[in-house]
Amino acid sequence: MTANYVSRDNFGMYAQTAIGPGPFLMGANTLLGNDVYNRDGQDLGDIKEFMIDMASGRIAYAVLSFGGLMGLGDKLFAVPWSALALDTENKRFTLNVPKDALKEAPGFDKGHWPSMSDKTWARGVHKFYGTPYSGD
Amino acid sequence: MTANYVSRDNFGMYAQTAIGPGPFLMGANTLLGNDVYNRDGQDLGDIKEFMIDMASGRIAYAVLSFGGLMGLGDKLFAVPWSALALDTENKRFTLNVPKDALKEAPGFDKGHWPSMSDKTWARGVHKFYGTPYSGD
Repeated sequence: MTANYVSRDNFGMYAQTAIGPGPFLMGANTLLGNDVYNRDGQDLGDIKEFMIDMASGRIAYAVLSFGGLMGLGDKLFAVPWSALALDTENKRFTLNVPKDALKEAPGFDKGHWPSMSDKTWARGVHKFYGTPYSGD
Repeated sequence: MTANYVSRDNFGMYAQTAIGPGPFLMGANTLLGNDVYNRDGQDLGDIKEFMIDMASGRIAYAVLSFGGLMGLGDKLFAVPWSALALDTENKRFTLNVPKDALKEAPGFDKGHWPSMSDKTWARGVHKFYGTPYSGD
C-alpha cells in the first residue's frame, strides 16, 4: 500500500470524516512520504520534508525526492509550497511540472543543503516553478 | 539522549553550521518530538505534530502532549505557532505558560480531534495562550 496521510495518521486526526481538522488543516507528519504527481498523472516522487520559515511559521518549501526519475535519485529538491496542491481524491500532492522539465530543477546533495534564506538561491527556485517570491 | 532537531536530522540539513537552512528555516520532521519548556525552565511536554493551514501554508498549531503533567497524559493540546519560540541554545521550544496554568488548557482526546477551522474553537485556543487570532 502506498503511504499517504491516512495510512500515516497515527493520532486518528482523520478518523472522523465529518469533523476533525482535515482537509483544511493537515498534520505535517501525516503528509511526509506522500506521493507527488503532475497533472498528467505521472508519478514524480515523494515528500521528504517541510521547511518551516520559523519567523512567519510558513512552510516555505517542501523537500522532494524525484527518485523515479533517471539520475535524480540521490538529490533533493526544494519546491515552493505554493507550487503544490493537495489532491484529496487521490490523497497525494499535485505539482504541475512536466516530468522531463524536472531534469533542470535546482537540486542539492543531501550532505550539502543550501542556505534557504539566501535570496539568490530562493529567487532561482521560485523562478523555476513559476511561483511568486516575496522575499525581495 | 533527548530527541531534538539535531538528533532527528536524517538528511544532514544541520550538518554544516555556517551554511544550510537553519535556524531561519527548519525541517518540520526534525522538530517532531522536541521538548517544550517554559521560561522558568520547567519541562512541559513535547511536540507531536504540526497542523498546516493548507490554503496559506502556515503552521497554525503545534500539537503537544503535556505528558509530564498529572492527569494530562492522554490528551493532546493545540498550541498556536505564535505562542512558541525556538530556543536554539537548548535546542527546544519555549512556551511561556506556567505549568499550573496548563491544567486549564483546552485539550482533546486522540480519537476526537476538534474541527480546527471552527472559529469558536480557534478563538478559545488563542484566548488561552494570549495569541492574536486572525480568522475573524
